[in-house]
Amino acid sequence: MSTSQTVKKLAQKAKQSSIDLAGLSSGIKNKALIKMAESIAKNSLYIFKENKKDLQKAEQSGLGAAFIDRLRLDSRRIKEMADSLKEIARLSDPVGEIIRSWQRPNGLRINKVRTPIGVIAIIYESRPNVTSDCVGLCLKTGNAIILRGGSEAFNSNKALYNLMTHSSAKLIPKGAVQFVPTTDRKALNYLLSLNNYVDLLIPRGGESLIKYVYNKSKIPVIKHYKGVCHIYVDQYADTGKALKICYNAKVQRPGVCNAMESLLVHKKIAVKFLVPMAEMFRDAGVELRGCAKSKKILPWIKSAKESDYYKEYLDLVLSVKIVDSVDSAIKHVYKYGSSHSDSIITEEPDAAFKFLNRVDSACVYLNASTRFTDGYQFGLGAEMGISTDKIHARGPMALEELTTYKYVIFGNGQIRS
Amino acid sequence: MSTSQTVKKLAQKAKQSSIDLAGLSSGIKNKALIKMAESIAKNSLYIFKENKKDLQKAEQSGLGAAFIDRLRLDSRRIKEMADSLKEIARLSDPVGEIIRSWQRPNGLRINKVRTPIGVIAIIYESRPNVTSDCVGLCLKTGNAIILRGGSEAFNSNKALYNLMTHSSAKLIPKGAVQFVPTTDRKALNYLLSLNNYVDLLIPRGGESLIKYVYNKSKIPVIKHYKGVCHIYVDQYADTGKALKICYNAKVQRPGVCNAMESLLVHKKIAVKFLVPMAEMFRDAGVELRGCAKSKKILPWIKSAKESDYYKEYLDLVLSVKIVDSVDSAIKHVYKYGSSHSDSIITEEPDAAFKFLNRVDSACVYLNASTRFTDGYQFGLGAEMGISTDKIHARGPMALEELTTYKYVIFGNGQIRS
Repeated sequence: MSTSQTVKKLAQKAKQSSIDLAGLSSGIKNKALIKMAESIAKNSLYIFKENKKDLQKAEQSGLGAAFIDRLRLDSRRIKEMADSLKEIARLSDPVGEIIRSWQRPNGLRINKVRTPIGVIAIIYESRPNVTSDCVGLCLKTGNAIILRGGSEAFNSNKALYNLMTHSSAKLIPKGAVQFVPTTDRKALNYLLSLNNYVDLLIPRGGESLIKYVYNKSKIPVIKHYKGVCHIYVDQYADTGKALKICYNAKVQRPGVCNAMESLLVHKKIAVKFLVPMAEMFRDAGVELRGCAKSKKILPWIKSAKESDYYKEYLDLVLSVKIVDSVDSAIKHVYKYGSSHSDSIITEEPDAAFKFLNRVDSACVYLNASTRFTDGYQFGLGAEMGISTDKIHARGPMALEELTTYKYVIFGNGQIRS
Repeated sequence: MSTSQTVKKLAQKAKQSSIDLAGLSSGIKNKALIKMAESIAKNSLYIFKENKKDLQKAEQSGLGAAFIDRLRLDSRRIKEMADSLKEIARLSDPVGEIIRSWQRPNGLRINKVRTPIGVIAIIYESRPNVTSDCVGLCLKTGNAIILRGGSEAFNSNKALYNLMTHSSAKLIPKGAVQFVPTTDRKALNYLLSLNNYVDLLIPRGGESLIKYVYNKSKIPVIKHYKGVCHIYVDQYADTGKALKICYNAKVQRPGVCNAMESLLVHKKIAVKFLVPMAEMFRDAGVELRGCAKSKKILPWIKSAKESDYYKEYLDLVLSVKIVDSVDSAIKHVYKYGSSHSDSIITEEPDAAFKFLNRVDSACVYLNASTRFTDGYQFGLGAEMGISTDKIHARGPMALEELTTYKYVIFGNGQIRS
């Protein structure tokens, strides 16, 4: 069979299974998730063996240590994958929820009911835990899934896929979990063309992967682009809170999308706040890149270029800008931000109100670290990522965001006049 | 200025205005809607004059009578446009609604708040009332709008645009309503490329327009494709209800997307139901196209080709098929349907349950006419159309569906540990 035939066939199977999957009870889905978790936990030797093939290939290809670390599966990571599936089993099932129900004067009862989306294809890069997380999230929400991981983790991904499908075979409809058995580009491109079978694409990985998928396909894509997150320290900020929050947002875990990348400071608080803040950052090894005004206060820092304000460093680097007002801060966020997460530090209600209302990001914070943008931190449980899109899902994309709805209308002979 | 510069500039203005528009109070928005309605009602002579230009051009081009009728604005239609804007003013404003609010153990208060989408471009065909309806719906939901109507109604659309923007100029942000001042294809194509400024595209018109927009653009599109709506008359149907409902769904207004296009009948009720049904349809001038089995019962009807079952006739034509079971009916709907509206007529709970749960259409009915799929009939008020997509909006696309949400998080110094 040719690559495109193989891919088409598996997409058709996924679509076919999605019909039965939509009707599966929560009990059965949870049972399948537990079986998958147990199978992963019990078969660590098999997973290590397959993972080793990927690690060896990566070492031979001279891939960097950070890359290899992300690829590596050890006992802790295997336990995390299994635990995550069990955790998904414990979450409540959104499918079938009656979102709203009302009756019309003619007696028609209209229920707006939460339903699965259908078939979701996940296009992802190196980390093998994406395989089990996504299968768990899609199964829980009654969606068929097509997995297309990166070539670097091919053997690890396949091992996880084998264990999960084998252990759940008696519980879930055949074909509900599909694995693209080749990592060549042609197979991906063909998958991206199957808008009759695939209802949604979720690329998980770097910007170039996301852009590739988005540009190649006519299937709806939910993008998890970069997080150029801002904290704006207002004239009326509590300096103590501001220092603590900004430090946390930059330093606690700089390599993630909800870390602060740009610090905006009102000119009237700039000296009072920036001097101690910069010291704390210096001690933590954070490189500051500031505007001309901030360099007057902190002559030792680097100059920021215009392009710095667009950057998601994912590292101990921070751009700094002094602004004249909350309005200037809002304008800056509009121009340079990525609609991910932005925070204002202030004790003044008008400024807070303005910022929270006008900044058009998935998450806007008052007096808190941007690092809370996360499914678990929100209390939503496991998530697919943080959507920076505005259509369908915004911010943490948890179970509910993997569903759609339909209207179920009960009549007893109603006709339209 | 070149066409593309013009289009880019107006899209930028729309984007810019959307920031202020998002913060506009319901009172001001409603006032603007009333002003627009009054201006349309008061300036009918101006509208007639501009509409006449379009009508003359259409007649000169030899366009059909049905087309010209849709284009024509008379006193009744002008009143309807004005009334529709007033009606939108009366609906409650979804923007700012707190969809959900909860507190985390660390004290963070998370509000999920309904917000405008941003900039919506409407690409539409001949009927000029689309202009005023869409401006009303977008303004009410705080979205900036870019109007790109068809060349046939250019003068009528422009007149309505002029009246609406002029009458509301003191109330709404400048640039919130934009009109593409040329109908050449280049302008449209350029508009479709502006994914930095336009957040959502809604094409309103025939299949070819929708496909064109969808294929040309990387901006999210919500499609309102065809309605190949089915009614399945089950073995345990109440024949009286079935006759009344099927007649209504086909005959009451055959030219709309929620009319029945295909009738499925269980074999065990086929003779009892189809004989009187076919007579009623014959009297109403409905042409039936049936499968081999139905032709045995009704030898005088035409034979259906395979392709008939995919067709949205929008006319007094109906395809008929006899099926063996509710399962066969469901399979048929999956294969030939368009995920719009489908109904089962039965008094048997198991069959009803199966059909309602498994048919994956925007609206599934029990013992009612498919003709109820409509924003007003649902009690949602005015709508943009009926989405046959699954992402973001499904079924009648009313005010709520023209919004998205953001998370507003209130802290008092929280950091992540």
